[in-house]
Amino acid sequence: MPRYKLTIEYDGTPYAGWQRQPRQLTVQAVLEKAINRFCGAETRLITAGRTDAGVHAFAQIAHVDFEKTWQVDTVSNALNAYLLQAGERVSILHTEEVTHSFHARFSAIRRHYLYRILNRRAPPTLDARYVWWIPRVLDIEKMQKAACHLIGRHDFTTFRAVQCQAKSAIRTLDQLNIRINGQWVEILASAQSFLHHQIRSIAGSLAAVGWGDWTVDDLEAALEARDRARCAVVAPARGLYLVRVDYACK
Amino acid sequence: MPRYKLTIEYDGTPYAGWQRQPRQLTVQAVLEKAINRFCGAETRLITAGRTDAGVHAFAQIAHVDFEKTWQVDTVSNALNAYLLQAGERVSILHTEEVTHSFHARFSAIRRHYLYRILNRRAPPTLDARYVWWIPRVLDIEKMQKAACHLIGRHDFTTFRAVQCQAKSAIRTLDQLNIRINGQWVEILASAQSFLHHQIRSIAGSLAAVGWGDWTVDDLEAALEARDRARCAVVAPARGLYLVRVDYACK
Repeated sequence: MPRYKLTIEYDGTPYAGWQRQPRQLTVQAVLEKAINRFCGAETRLITAGRTDAGVHAFAQIAHVDFEKTWQVDTVSNALNAYLLQAGERVSILHTEEVTHSFHARFSAIRRHYLYRILNRRAPPTLDARYVWWIPRVLDIEKMQKAACHLIGRHDFTTFRAVQCQAKSAIRTLDQLNIRINGQWVEILASAQSFLHHQIRSIAGSLAAVGWGDWTVDDLEAALEARDRARCAVVAPARGLYLVRVDYACK
Repeated sequence: MPRYKLTIEYDGTPYAGWQRQPRQLTVQAVLEKAINRFCGAETRLITAGRTDAGVHAFAQIAHVDFEKTWQVDTVSNALNAYLLQAGERVSILHTEEVTHSFHARFSAIRRHYLYRILNRRAPPTLDARYVWWIPRVLDIEKMQKAACHLIGRHDFTTFRAVQCQAKSAIRTLDQLNIRINGQWVEILASAQSFLHHQIRSIAGSLAAVGWGDWTVDDLEAALEARDRARCAVVAPARGLYLVRVDYACK
Protein backbone atom coordinates (compact mmCIF):
# COMPACT_ATOMS: atom_id res chain seq x y z
CA MET A 1 0.00 0.00 0.00
CA PRO A 2 1.63 3.25 -1.11
CA ARG A 3 1.89 5.96 1.55
CA TYR A 4 1.28 9.64 0.90
CA LYS A 5 2.35 12.66 2.90
CA LEU A 6 -0.17 15.50 2.74
CA THR A 7 0.64 19.15 3.55
CA ILE A 8 -2.57 20.79 4.70
CA GLU A 9 -3.63 24.39 5.31
CA TYR A 10 -6.76 25.22 7.27
CA ASP A 11 -8.74 27.98 8.88
CA GLY A 12 -9.51 26.49 12.30
CA THR A 13 -12.47 28.83 12.95
CA PRO A 14 -15.33 26.52 11.92
CA TYR A 15 -13.81 23.28 13.23
CA ALA A 16 -13.83 21.51 16.60
CA GLY A 17 -10.10 20.90 16.14
CA TRP A 18 -8.23 18.29 14.13
CA GLN A 19 -9.32 15.07 15.75
CA ARG A 20 -12.37 13.11 14.65
CA GLN A 21 -15.12 13.24 17.29
CA PRO A 22 -18.72 12.03 17.27
CA ARG A 23 -21.21 14.64 15.97
CA GLN A 24 -18.55 17.33 15.54
CA LEU A 25 -17.15 19.00 12.44
CA THR A 26 -13.41 18.38 12.59
CA VAL A 27 -10.57 18.79 10.09
CA GLN A 28 -9.77 15.08 10.20
CA ALA A 29 -13.39 14.09 9.56
CA VAL A 30 -13.68 16.52 6.64
CA LEU A 31 -10.46 15.22 5.06
CA GLU A 32 -11.31 11.56 5.59
CA LYS A 33 -14.66 12.14 3.95
CA ALA A 34 -12.90 13.77 0.98
CA ILE A 35 -10.52 10.79 0.72
CA ASN A 36 -13.44 8.39 0.93
CA ARG A 37 -15.17 10.21 -1.95
CA PHE A 38 -11.92 10.12 -3.92
CA CYS A 39 -10.95 6.45 -3.63
CA GLY A 40 -13.88 4.77 -1.93
CA ALA A 41 -11.80 3.48 0.96
CA GLU A 42 -12.40 4.09 4.68
CA THR A 43 -8.92 5.45 5.32
CA ARG A 44 -7.53 6.88 8.55
CA LEU A 45 -5.27 9.90 8.52
CA ILE A 46 -2.33 10.08 10.91
CA THR A 47 -1.27 13.62 11.77
CA ALA A 48 1.79 15.41 13.12
CA GLY A 49 -0.21 17.47 15.59
CA ARG A 50 -3.82 17.29 16.76
CA THR A 51 -4.60 20.99 16.87
CA ASP A 52 -7.35 22.25 19.18
CA ALA A 53 -10.67 23.81 18.21
CA GLY A 54 -10.09 27.14 16.48
CA VAL A 55 -6.35 26.65 15.93
CA HIS A 56 -5.14 27.26 12.37
CA ALA A 57 -2.49 25.56 10.22
CA PHE A 58 -0.30 26.88 7.44
CA ALA A 59 1.25 23.45 6.91
CA GLN A 60 -0.16 20.61 8.96
CA ILE A 61 1.26 17.22 7.97
CA ALA A 62 -0.65 13.94 7.77
CA HIS A 63 -0.04 10.61 6.10
CA VAL A 64 -2.44 8.18 4.54
CA ASP A 65 -2.11 4.72 2.94
CA PHE A 66 -3.96 4.13 -0.32
CA GLU A 67 -4.75 0.79 -1.91
CA LYS A 68 -3.28 1.80 -5.24
CA THR A 69 -0.74 4.26 -6.58
CA TRP A 70 -1.93 7.71 -7.66
CA GLN A 71 -0.22 10.65 -9.31
CA VAL A 72 0.46 13.08 -6.45
CA ASP A 73 -1.19 15.99 -8.29
CA THR A 74 -4.28 13.87 -8.87
CA VAL A 75 -4.58 13.34 -5.11
CA SER A 76 -4.22 17.08 -4.31
CA ASN A 77 -6.57 18.20 -7.08
CA ALA A 78 -9.26 15.64 -6.37
CA LEU A 79 -9.30 16.32 -2.62
CA ASN A 80 -9.25 20.10 -3.16
CA ALA A 81 -12.08 19.90 -5.69
CA TYR A 82 -14.22 18.09 -3.14
CA LEU A 83 -13.23 20.38 -0.24
CA LEU A 84 -13.91 23.50 -2.27
CA GLN A 85 -17.28 22.28 -3.48
CA ALA A 86 -18.23 21.33 0.10
CA GLY A 87 -17.34 24.90 1.24
CA GLU A 88 -14.69 23.64 3.67
CA ARG A 89 -11.85 25.89 4.88
CA VAL A 90 -9.29 23.11 4.38
CA SER A 91 -6.87 22.80 1.46
CA ILE A 92 -4.18 20.34 0.34
CA LEU A 93 -1.04 22.33 -0.48
CA HIS A 94 1.10 19.39 -1.48
CA THR A 95 1.03 15.57 -1.82
CA GLU A 96 4.17 13.46 -1.82
CA GLU A 97 4.68 9.70 -2.02
CA VAL A 98 6.78 8.48 0.93
CA THR A 99 8.13 5.15 2.17
CA HIS A 100 6.59 3.26 5.09
CA SER A 101 9.46 4.46 7.28
CA PHE A 102 7.73 7.84 7.23
CA HIS A 103 5.18 8.40 9.98
CA ALA A 104 3.55 11.84 10.25
CA ARG A 105 3.54 11.71 14.04
CA PHE A 106 6.54 9.61 15.07
CA SER A 107 9.01 10.77 12.39
CA ALA A 108 8.47 14.45 13.21
CA ILE A 109 11.62 15.89 14.74
CA ARG A 110 10.41 19.44 15.23
CA ARG A 111 7.12 21.32 15.26
CA HIS A 112 6.97 25.09 14.70
CA TYR A 113 4.09 27.20 15.92
CA LEU A 114 3.29 30.89 15.62
CA TYR A 115 1.14 32.84 18.08
CA ARG A 116 -0.17 36.17 16.78
CA ILE A 117 -1.21 39.09 18.98
CA LEU A 118 -2.72 42.29 17.60
CA ASN A 119 -1.36 44.94 19.96
CA ARG A 120 -3.18 48.24 19.48
CA ARG A 121 -6.04 50.21 20.99
CA ALA A 122 -8.39 49.73 18.03
CA PRO A 123 -10.22 46.38 17.89
CA PRO A 124 -9.35 44.03 15.00
CA THR A 125 -11.52 43.95 11.88
CA LEU A 126 -9.98 42.00 8.99
CA ASP A 127 -8.17 39.56 11.29
CA ALA A 128 -10.67 39.39 14.15
CA ARG A 129 -10.76 35.58 13.88
CA TYR A 130 -7.02 35.23 13.46
CA VAL A 131 -5.37 37.09 16.34
CA TRP A 132 -5.57 37.68 20.07
CA TRP A 133 -6.37 41.35 20.47
CA ILE A 134 -4.49 42.99 23.37
CA PRO A 135 -5.22 46.75 23.64
CA ARG A 136 -2.79 47.24 26.56
CA VAL A 137 0.77 48.24 25.63
CA LEU A 138 3.12 45.25 25.70
CA ASP A 139 6.73 45.50 26.85
CA ILE A 140 8.35 43.27 24.23
CA GLU A 141 11.79 43.35 25.81
CA LYS A 142 10.43 41.99 29.09
CA MET A 143 8.45 39.34 27.21
CA GLN A 144 11.63 38.19 25.44
CA LYS A 145 13.54 38.09 28.73
CA ALA A 146 10.81 36.00 30.32
CA ALA A 147 10.72 33.73 27.24
CA CYS A 148 14.42 32.97 27.67
CA HIS A 149 13.67 31.31 31.02
CA LEU A 150 11.38 28.84 29.27
CA ILE A 151 13.80 27.78 26.53
CA GLY A 152 15.44 24.39 27.09
CA ARG A 153 14.41 21.27 29.02
CA HIS A 154 11.86 21.87 31.79
CA ASP A 155 8.92 20.38 33.59
CA PHE A 156 6.06 22.36 32.01
CA THR A 157 3.30 21.23 34.42
CA THR A 158 2.33 24.89 34.98
CA PHE A 159 1.87 25.35 31.26
CA ARG A 160 -0.19 22.34 30.28
CA ALA A 161 -3.92 21.67 30.40
CA VAL A 162 -5.25 19.62 33.31
CA GLN A 163 -6.65 17.16 30.77
CA CYS A 164 -3.27 16.72 29.01
CA GLN A 165 -2.68 12.99 28.48
CA ALA A 166 1.11 12.99 28.09
CA LYS A 167 2.83 10.77 30.69
CA SER A 168 5.56 13.30 31.38
CA ALA A 169 5.35 17.10 31.54
CA ILE A 170 9.03 17.38 30.63
CA ARG A 171 9.63 18.93 27.23
CA THR A 172 12.52 20.70 25.51
CA LEU A 173 11.64 24.06 24.05
CA ASP A 174 14.16 24.76 21.27
CA GLN A 175 12.99 28.23 20.33
CA LEU A 176 10.75 30.86 21.90
CA ASN A 177 11.16 34.18 20.13
CA ILE A 178 9.11 37.33 20.30
CA ARG A 179 9.14 39.61 17.29
CA ILE A 180 7.29 42.79 16.37
CA ASN A 181 5.71 42.81 12.92
CA GLY A 182 3.94 46.14 12.48
CA GLN A 183 0.98 46.22 14.90
CA TRP A 184 1.39 42.50 15.57
CA VAL A 185 3.47 40.77 18.20
CA GLU A 186 4.44 37.28 17.09
CA ILE A 187 5.61 34.46 19.33
CA LEU A 188 7.52 31.69 17.56
CA ALA A 189 7.81 28.39 19.40
CA SER A 190 9.68 25.27 18.26
CA ALA A 191 10.06 21.89 19.93
CA GLN A 192 10.05 18.21 19.06
CA SER A 193 6.68 18.00 20.75
CA PHE A 194 4.37 20.15 22.84
CA LEU A 195 1.98 19.47 25.70
CA HIS A 196 -1.75 20.14 25.48
CA HIS A 197 -2.36 23.94 25.62
CA GLN A 198 1.38 24.48 26.21
CA ILE A 199 1.87 27.28 23.67
CA ARG A 200 -1.38 29.04 24.57
CA SER A 201 -0.48 28.84 28.28
CA ILE A 202 2.99 30.22 27.56
CA ALA A 203 1.62 32.96 25.27
CA GLY A 204 -0.89 34.02 27.95
CA SER A 205 1.79 34.13 30.63
CA LEU A 206 4.22 36.04 28.40
CA ALA A 207 1.44 38.54 27.67
CA ALA A 208 0.90 38.96 31.42
CA VAL A 209 4.59 39.91 31.66
CA GLY A 210 4.17 42.20 28.64
CA TRP A 211 1.29 44.20 30.09
CA GLY A 212 2.88 44.33 33.53
CA ASP A 213 0.71 42.04 35.71
CA TRP A 214 3.67 39.69 36.02
CA THR A 215 7.39 40.36 36.37
CA VAL A 216 9.99 38.22 34.61
CA ASP A 217 10.64 36.60 38.01
CA ASP A 218 6.95 35.77 38.41
CA LEU A 219 7.09 33.76 35.20
CA GLU A 220 10.22 31.95 36.30
CA ALA A 221 8.63 31.17 39.68
CA ALA A 222 5.48 29.91 37.95
CA LEU A 223 7.55 27.49 35.85
CA GLU A 224 9.43 26.26 38.90
CA ALA A 225 6.24 25.80 40.91
CA ARG A 226 5.11 23.00 38.53
CA ASP A 227 1.53 23.90 39.40
CA ARG A 228 -1.19 24.45 36.80
CA ALA A 229 -2.92 26.93 39.13
CA ARG A 230 0.11 29.21 38.74
CA CYS A 231 -0.44 29.72 34.98
CA ALA A 232 -1.62 33.18 33.94
CA VAL A 233 -4.39 33.42 31.30
CA VAL A 234 -4.50 30.82 28.53
CA ALA A 235 -4.32 32.71 25.23
CA PRO A 236 -7.29 32.11 22.87
CA ALA A 237 -7.02 29.46 20.15
CA ARG A 238 -7.68 31.88 17.28
CA GLY A 239 -4.15 33.37 17.51
CA LEU A 240 -2.35 30.02 17.16
CA TYR A 241 -0.97 28.58 13.90
CA LEU A 242 0.88 25.32 13.20
CA VAL A 243 3.49 26.69 10.82
CA ARG A 244 5.78 23.80 9.88
CA VAL A 245 6.80 20.28 10.85
CA ASP A 246 10.35 19.06 10.23
CA TYR A 247 11.21 15.45 9.37
CA ALA A 248 14.58 13.74 9.19
CA CYS A 249 13.50 11.21 6.58
CA LYS A 250 10.90 10.66 3.90
CA MET B 1 -18.08 73.25 14.98
CA PRO B 2 -14.81 71.35 15.41
CA ARG B 3 -13.92 68.98 12.58
CA TYR B 4 -12.40 65.55 13.12
CA LYS B 5 -10.53 63.35 10.69
CA LEU B 6 -11.11 59.65 11.29
CA THR B 7 -8.82 56.87 10.04
CA ILE B 8 -10.94 53.75 9.65
CA GLU B 9 -10.15 50.07 9.08
CA TYR B 10 -12.83 47.64 7.95
CA ASP B 11 -13.50 44.15 6.71
CA GLY B 12 -15.76 44.81 3.73
CA THR B 13 -17.20 41.26 3.70
CA PRO B 14 -20.46 41.87 5.60
CA TYR B 15 -21.17 45.34 4.18
CA ALA B 16 -22.95 46.60 1.08
CA GLY B 17 -20.07 49.04 0.57
CA TRP B 18 -19.31 52.37 2.21
CA GLN B 19 -22.25 54.50 1.17
CA ARG B 20 -25.47 54.73 3.15
CA GLN B 21 -28.37 53.03 1.31
CA PRO B 22 -31.93 52.26 2.35
CA ARG B 23 -32.35 48.86 4.05
CA GLN B 24 -28.67 47.91 3.58
CA LEU B 25 -25.88 47.41 6.09
CA THR B 26 -23.15 49.81 5.03
CA VAL B 27 -19.96 51.06 6.67
CA GLN B 28 -21.19 54.65 6.62
CA ALA B 29 -24.50 53.72 8.26
CA VAL B 30 -22.77 51.70 10.98
CA LEU B 31 -20.35 54.56 11.74
CA GLU B 32 -23.02 57.25 11.71
CA LYS B 33 -25.07 55.17 14.13
CA ALA B 34 -22.03 54.86 16.41
CA ILE B 35 -21.50 58.64 16.24
CA ASN B 36 -25.16 59.24 16.99
CA ARG B 37 -24.92 57.02 20.08
CA PHE B 38 -21.78 58.87 21.13
CA CYS B 39 -22.91 62.47 20.86
CA GLY B 40 -26.62 62.32 20.10
CA ALA B 41 -26.28 64.29 16.87
CA GLU B 42 -27.45 63.19 13.41
CA THR B 43 -24.08 63.72 11.80
CA ARG B 44 -23.04 62.95 8.23
CA LEU B 45 -19.64 61.50 7.46
CA ILE B 46 -17.74 62.65 4.37
CA THR B 47 -15.32 60.07 3.02
CA ALA B 48 -12.25 59.97 0.79
CA GLY B 49 -13.50 57.01 -1.21
CA ARG B 50 -16.87 55.28 -1.39
CA THR B 51 -15.67 51.68 -1.56
CA ASP B 52 -17.92 49.05 -3.16
CA ALA B 53 -19.62 46.11 -1.48
CA GLY B 54 -17.01 43.65 -0.20
CA VAL B 55 -14.03 46.00 -0.61
CA HIS B 56 -11.81 46.34 2.47
CA ALA B 57 -9.92 49.28 3.98
CA PHE B 58 -6.72 49.46 5.99
CA ALA B 59 -7.03 53.22 6.34
CA GLN B 60 -10.15 54.81 4.93
CA ILE B 61 -10.43 58.51 5.77
CA ALA B 62 -13.60 60.38 6.70
CA HIS B 63 -14.36 63.68 8.37
CA VAL B 64 -17.16 64.69 10.67
CA ASP B 65 -18.20 67.93 12.36
CA PHE B 66 -19.18 67.76 16.03
CA GLU B 67 -21.11 70.34 18.00
CA LYS B 68 -18.52 70.44 20.76
CA THR B 69 -14.84 69.69 21.22
CA TRP B 70 -13.79 66.21 22.33
CA GLN B 71 -10.46 64.64 23.25
CA VAL B 72 -9.43 62.70 20.15
CA ASP B 73 -8.84 59.49 22.14
CA THR B 74 -12.30 59.81 23.65
CA VAL B 75 -13.79 59.85 20.15
CA SER B 76 -11.82 56.76 19.02
CA ASN B 77 -12.47 54.80 22.21
CA ALA B 78 -16.18 55.61 22.42
CA LEU B 79 -16.83 54.74 18.77
CA ASN B 80 -14.76 51.55 19.01
CA ALA B 81 -16.52 50.46 22.18
CA TYR B 82 -19.87 50.78 20.41
CA LEU B 83 -18.65 49.09 17.18
CA LEU B 84 -17.10 46.20 19.10
CA GLN B 85 -20.18 45.65 21.23
CA ALA B 86 -22.37 45.73 18.10
CA GLY B 87 -20.16 43.04 16.51
CA GLU B 88 -19.23 45.28 13.59
CA ARG B 89 -16.07 44.68 11.54
CA VAL B 90 -15.23 48.40 11.54
CA SER B 91 -12.63 50.09 13.74
CA ILE B 92 -11.36 53.64 14.30
CA LEU B 93 -7.56 53.56 14.13
CA HIS B 94 -7.03 57.25 14.74
CA THR B 95 -8.90 60.50 15.37
CA GLU B 96 -7.39 63.91 14.71
CA GLU B 97 -8.81 67.42 15.04
CA VAL B 98 -8.46 69.30 11.74
CA THR B 99 -9.36 72.76 10.43
CA HIS B 100 -12.33 73.41 8.16
CA SER B 101 -9.94 73.69 5.22
CA PHE B 102 -9.64 69.90 5.48
CA HIS B 103 -12.18 67.93 3.45
CA ALA B 104 -11.85 64.12 3.36
CA ARG B 105 -12.89 63.96 -0.28
CA PHE B 106 -11.78 67.21 -1.88
CA SER B 107 -8.46 67.65 -0.02
CA ALA B 108 -7.24 64.16 -0.95
CA ILE B 109 -4.32 64.41 -3.35
CA ARG B 110 -3.67 60.69 -3.77
CA ARG B 111 -5.44 57.40 -3.08
CA HIS B 112 -3.51 54.15 -2.77
CA TYR B 113 -5.15 50.78 -3.34
CA LEU B 114 -3.87 47.21 -3.11
CA TYR B 115 -5.30 44.29 -5.05
CA ARG B 116 -4.36 40.84 -3.68
CA ILE B 117 -4.33 37.66 -5.76
CA LEU B 118 -3.60 34.23 -4.27
CA ASN B 119 -1.77 32.47 -7.10
CA ARG B 120 -1.52 28.74 -6.39
CA ARG B 121 -3.28 25.49 -7.24
CA ALA B 122 -4.68 24.94 -3.75
CA PRO B 123 -7.82 26.92 -2.90
CA PRO B 124 -7.54 29.59 -0.17
CA THR B 125 -8.56 28.79 3.40
CA LEU B 126 -7.51 31.46 5.93
CA ASP B 127 -7.84 34.29 3.42
CA ALA B 128 -10.72 32.98 1.33
CA ARG B 129 -12.65 36.24 1.89
CA TYR B 130 -9.63 38.45 1.35
CA VAL B 131 -8.08 37.48 -1.98
CA TRP B 132 -8.91 36.62 -5.57
CA TRP B 133 -7.83 33.00 -6.01
CA ILE B 134 -6.22 32.33 -9.41
CA PRO B 135 -5.01 28.72 -9.76
CA ARG B 136 -3.48 29.27 -13.22
CA VAL B 137 0.18 30.28 -13.31
CA LEU B 138 0.59 34.05 -13.78
CA ASP B 139 3.40 35.56 -15.85
CA ILE B 140 4.29 38.48 -13.58
CA GLU B 141 6.77 40.02 -16.01
CA LYS B 142 4.11 40.28 -18.72
CA MET B 143 1.64 41.70 -16.21
CA GLN B 144 4.13 44.42 -15.23
CA LYS B 145 4.82 45.22 -18.90
CA ALA B 146 1.09 45.53 -19.55
CA ALA B 147 0.66 47.67 -16.42
CA CYS B 148 3.23 50.15 -17.74
CA HIS B 149 0.90 50.95 -20.66
CA LEU B 150 -1.78 52.06 -18.20
CA ILE B 151 0.39 54.38 -16.12
CA GLY B 152 -0.11 58.09 -16.85
CA ARG B 153 -3.03 60.13 -18.20
CA HIS B 154 -5.53 58.13 -20.25
CA ASP B 155 -9.19 57.81 -21.12
CA PHE B 156 -10.14 54.77 -19.01
CA THR B 157 -13.60 54.18 -20.53
CA THR B 158 -12.70 50.50 -21.08
CA PHE B 159 -11.88 50.14 -17.40
CA ARG B 160 -14.85 51.78 -15.72
CA ALA B 161 -18.28 50.47 -14.82
CA VAL B 162 -21.16 51.36 -17.13
CA GLN B 163 -22.92 52.95 -14.16
CA CYS B 164 -19.88 55.15 -13.31
CA GLN B 165 -21.15 58.69 -12.68
CA ALA B 166 -17.93 60.63 -13.28
CA LYS B 167 -18.29 63.23 -16.07
CA SER B 168 -14.95 62.36 -17.63
CA ALA B 169 -13.23 58.97 -17.99
CA ILE B 170 -9.84 60.65 -18.10
CA ARG B 171 -7.68 59.87 -15.09
CA THR B 172 -3.96 59.92 -14.30
CA LEU B 173 -2.62 56.68 -12.89
CA ASP B 174 0.53 57.56 -10.92
CA GLN B 175 1.57 54.05 -9.94
CA LEU B 176 0.63 50.55 -11.08
CA ASN B 177 3.12 48.02 -9.72
CA ILE B 178 2.95 44.26 -9.57
CA ARG B 179 4.92 42.52 -6.84
CA ILE B 180 5.22 38.92 -5.72
CA ASN B 181 4.82 38.35 -1.99
CA GLY B 182 5.14 34.61 -1.35
CA GLN B 183 2.11 32.90 -2.91
CA TRP B 184 0.42 36.25 -3.39
CA VAL B 185 0.57 38.61 -6.34
CA GLU B 186 -0.09 42.18 -5.27
CA ILE B 187 -1.11 45.04 -7.53
CA LEU B 188 -0.48 48.51 -6.13
CA ALA B 189 -2.37 51.37 -7.74
CA SER B 190 -2.12 55.07 -6.90
CA ALA B 191 -3.95 58.06 -8.38
CA GLN B 192 -5.56 61.29 -7.28
CA SER B 193 -8.89 59.64 -8.00
CA PHE B 194 -10.26 56.49 -9.57
CA LEU B 195 -13.32 55.68 -11.67
CA HIS B 196 -16.00 53.22 -10.52
CA HIS B 197 -14.62 49.65 -10.78
CA GLN B 198 -11.42 51.01 -12.35
CA ILE B 199 -8.95 49.03 -10.24
CA ARG B 200 -10.97 45.81 -10.37
CA SER B 201 -11.29 46.18 -14.17
CA ILE B 202 -7.56 46.79 -14.49
CA ALA B 203 -6.71 43.90 -12.11
CA GLY B 204 -8.92 41.53 -14.11
CA SER B 205 -7.37 42.59 -17.41
CA LEU B 206 -3.82 42.33 -16.02
CA ALA B 207 -4.66 38.84 -14.76
CA ALA B 208 -5.87 37.92 -18.28
CA VAL B 209 -2.42 38.96 -19.53
CA GLY B 210 -0.83 36.99 -16.68
CA TRP B 211 -2.57 33.71 -17.46
CA GLY B 212 -2.09 34.14 -21.21
CA ASP B 213 -5.59 34.85 -22.55
CA TRP B 214 -4.42 38.35 -23.47
CA THR B 215 -1.10 39.63 -24.82
CA VAL B 216 0.41 42.90 -23.64
CA ASP B 217 -0.74 44.37 -26.98
CA ASP B 218 -4.30 43.20 -26.33
CA LEU B 219 -4.36 45.23 -23.15
CA GLU B 220 -2.97 48.31 -24.90
CA ALA B 221 -5.56 47.92 -27.67
CA ALA B 222 -8.35 47.54 -25.10
CA LEU B 223 -7.31 50.82 -23.44
CA GLU B 224 -7.18 52.61 -26.79
CA ALA B 225 -10.58 51.24 -27.87
CA ARG B 226 -12.28 53.28 -25.07
CA ASP B 227 -15.02 50.63 -25.07
CA ARG B 228 -16.31 48.98 -21.88
CA ALA B 229 -17.08 45.81 -23.85
CA ARG B 230 -13.33 45.40 -24.44
CA CYS B 231 -12.54 44.96 -20.72
CA ALA B 232 -11.52 41.45 -19.64
CA VAL B 233 -12.99 40.05 -16.39
CA VAL B 234 -13.69 42.44 -13.51
CA ALA B 235 -11.73 41.13 -10.52
CA PRO B 236 -13.86 40.32 -7.42
CA ALA B 237 -14.27 42.94 -4.67
CA ARG B 238 -12.85 40.72 -1.92
CA GLY B 239 -9.23 41.21 -3.18
CA LEU B 240 -9.36 45.02 -3.06
CA TYR B 241 -8.10 47.20 -0.17
CA LEU B 242 -8.03 50.97 0.26
CA VAL B 243 -4.56 51.28 1.78
CA ARG B 244 -3.90 54.99 2.28
CA VAL B 245 -5.08 58.47 1.35
CA ASP B 246 -2.61 61.36 1.09
CA TYR B 247 -3.50 64.94 1.96
CA ALA B 248 -1.55 68.13 1.38
CA CYS B 249 -3.02 69.94 4.37
CA LYS B 250 -4.71 69.29 7.67
